[in-house]
Amino acid sequence: MVSNTAEEIKQIYLTAIENQLQLSIHRALDNENPQLYEILQYHMGWQDNRKKNKPRGKRIRPLLVLLSCSAAGGDWQKALPAAAAVELVHNFSLIHDDIEDNSPLRHGRATVWKKWGIPQAINAGDAMFTLAHLEVVHLADFIPLASAIKAVEILQTTCLNLTQGQYLDLEFETRNDVTIEEYWHMVEGKTAALVATSAGLGAISALCDEKTCEIYHSFGRLLGLAFQAQDDYLGIWGNSALTGKSNQSDLITGKKTLPVLYGLTNAGEFARQWIQKPIHPDRVKELIRLLEVEGGKEYTQQKASSLIEQALGNLQGAHPSGIAKDLLIKLTHDLIQRQT
Amino acid sequence: MVSNTAEEIKQIYLTAIENQLQLSIHRALDNENPQLYEILQYHMGWQDNRKKNKPRGKRIRPLLVLLSCSAAGGDWQKALPAAAAVELVHNFSLIHDDIEDNSPLRHGRATVWKKWGIPQAINAGDAMFTLAHLEVVHLADFIPLASAIKAVEILQTTCLNLTQGQYLDLEFETRNDVTIEEYWHMVEGKTAALVATSAGLGAISALCDEKTCEIYHSFGRLLGLAFQAQDDYLGIWGNSALTGKSNQSDLITGKKTLPVLYGLTNAGEFARQWIQKPIHPDRVKELIRLLEVEGGKEYTQQKASSLIEQALGNLQGAHPSGIAKDLLIKLTHDLIQRQT
Repeated sequence: MVSNTAEEIKQIYLTAIENQLQLSIHRALDNENPQLYEILQYHMGWQDNRKKNKPRGKRIRPLLVLLSCSAAGGDWQKALPAAAAVELVHNFSLIHDDIEDNSPLRHGRATVWKKWGIPQAINAGDAMFTLAHLEVVHLADFIPLASAIKAVEILQTTCLNLTQGQYLDLEFETRNDVTIEEYWHMVEGKTAALVATSAGLGAISALCDEKTCEIYHSFGRLLGLAFQAQDDYLGIWGNSALTGKSNQSDLITGKKTLPVLYGLTNAGEFARQWIQKPIHPDRVKELIRLLEVEGGKEYTQQKASSLIEQALGNLQGAHPSGIAKDLLIKLTHDLIQRQT
Repeated sequence: MVSNTAEEIKQIYLTAIENQLQLSIHRALDNENPQLYEILQYHMGWQDNRKKNKPRGKRIRPLLVLLSCSAAGGDWQKALPAAAAVELVHNFSLIHDDIEDNSPLRHGRATVWKKWGIPQAINAGDAMFTLAHLEVVHLADFIPLASAIKAVEILQTTCLNLTQGQYLDLEFETRNDVTIEEYWHMVEGKTAALVATSAGLGAISALCDEKTCEIYHSFGRLLGLAFQAQDDYLGIWGNSALTGKSNQSDLITGKKTLPVLYGLTNAGEFARQWIQKPIHPDRVKELIRLLEVEGGKEYTQQKASSLIEQALGNLQGAHPSGIAKDLLIKLTHDLIQRQT
């Protein structure tokens, strides 16, 4: 059971994360270049009427940093630079992904490239990426230099994995023979690497030994894989009013998500119909029905659930403690019950 | 006088830089993702027949790192990670700039986006950017941790300046009232910051005191400003067979370069004709003639020369020594005598 106190603590963490993110962007950009600052603020959702547009992200990765740090016995406030850094990396990748995927909407609002054009959006993403790297170095103000340097290197290696995953994701668009094995390889880079690093940096900030850091990293990796499976699920069966994008878009754009690849591997009626391009919006309902009949919906749900179970089993090995442990377990469960 | 020995030393540096760059990209990408690796190799010019295509850049920034380190009394080999890092940052910015400027050619070859499409080019630039950040951290293998962390932070702040300069450069395209003052502010970020940091990181790698590091930084800044003025000069009066791009492109695209802004400020016949868009290739010759008559060519040359003199005057304050000092002075003079 998670008590009210736990919810309160989560809110304290979320507020601290938002402050740290604002500080990071403000410190670096406000006076020097108010216009570039404005683009980044817009993307982060700090400009609009929040209640109406719900523009803010869920801040899952920075929460994971702070909770992992705290559950591992550390002082979560020392992990704030790492928390802000992973969220900045995540948002840099969103700005660039939206260009690469030609996505006009995010959280129901125009994407950066749609609003400012592709050149300024590429550049704004680069600025956000730089802010992430600048932020993580601030760990050196709170933890020993050697640990800080290690954290910096881990985050950077993760960014490289991100670009490798993104390369594959883009390359998959040009092929019809993508296997489920290749899919997981892509997801390792595109999604799991940063979630793994979020948990891992929490443990590093808590000055854990190497083995414990690895367990948190591995817990985060499984969580990241589950997160992507669930994202793919919501891309077809999610509530578009909540996700802020059309729940048919993944099928119309021909994206090779986990349920689609399951259907293609199954080589049944779904595969036969899906292969016929373009997929007109009128055909989507029937495609979804076929995928359900052939077991693609259940397969994706079960895969996400099984990864979540593995992740939690893994986490036990690090002997997490306190309210942060409860929150970590709740966050993990919530991931596959989420609707957005 | 620069002896043959100096030329030989320069070649040793250039070879070491190329090895370090190849090691950096190879170490990080080769096995994991051969295709992404191939894109970066192509951009760096390691795939073609060099004699024919001259694809390699001039490696001015990394040379500046090593020469500054050596002239400041340090061991240039310890500065190699910094040298590779600044060149990787430079090349990341080229990959993205080529997309943002819609440039199809670089060094006479198709740009990355032209060859692999915009999405993969954005991602390849992100990968190159990440490699730069990974590389500079390797300074910690050779110099004290505190100095390495300082170098990391300086490079990252420089990257932020780069994106601020790039923001302004893109924004200038939408305005006809750009002043020469605003131009220099843009150049500080887009060009001078990284050249300044190249010299500065050389001094840091030589473990110089703060004042000496600042002098090298300031020398590099003036050099960077001169470099951009000369680049603008070559963009109109350069030999297109050597630069690998049309020497009329800066006028046709309406770029606000230093000579153009001089002409606009002059508000004479050049300004009257330049303002009439589009600028058809047939009109370019006459525009160049007008700019020359009104003094824009001479102004740009003099500005570059005067900045070079200032840079060299500044450098004396750091008491550089050895053959590296001679090479540093030669490199500085060569910058405004270059044709590409």
